[in-house]
Amino acid sequence: VFLDGGGVVLALWDWDKLAQDAVLSARSPPQSFRGATFAWNCATPAEVDAIFAKAIEAGAGLLRKPEKTDYGGYRGYFSDPDGHAWEVVQAPGFAFTGDGRLILPE
Amino acid sequence: VFLDGGGVVLALWDWDKLAQDAVLSARSPPQSFRGATFAWNCATPAEVDAIFAKAIEAGAGLLRKPEKTDYGGYRGYFSDPDGHAWEVVQAPGFAFTGDGRLILPE
Repeated sequence: VFLDGGGVVLALWDWDKLAQDAVLSARSPPQSFRGATFAWNCATPAEVDAIFAKAIEAGAGLLRKPEKTDYGGYRGYFSDPDGHAWEVVQAPGFAFTGDGRLILPE
Repeated sequence: VFLDGGGVVLALWDWDKLAQDAVLSARSPPQSFRGATFAWNCATPAEVDAIFAKAIEAGAGLLRKPEKTDYGGYRGYFSDPDGHAWEVVQAPGFAFTGDGRLILPE
């Protein structure tokens, strides 16, 4: 599956096949931090809560309930069935275009 | 560091701090497959070779030298200093906008 992100594409593929393509050992998914997370940026804390609840309802693992951050944002973390960590976050200064693209603060 | 990818942003952050934010154990980077790779899509095999050589020259680890794939593409893999696997690839049917954004095949 390829998801068009507007210039950047998120591609989903079979765990073992991608490991094989990268010539890496496809042991069971590491349980510790993998050095990368996905962040789903939202416009409001309420949107964070809604998306987070939807993920948990769909079977995601709870890593950290949404809460205020020390930089004035609001975020939580869940893990997907493959153990990837996803952040759902509303960050001050981060805005969006009409079609949902993230705009970085100046 | 935030790198604007046109709607999707690649953010670089301290390994330990991101692990802490996601409430995950920040042990040493897993050496086995982590379930995700980054792909740098190129327009031609020659561009793949050039980018790949630049990465290796900059100290990247060699996972797989660029070579033809069974789907008619051309790709190699290197690992960055944090052990993330990067694919450098030219895939048939994948094109680019004038400002370098990837266009998926129809």
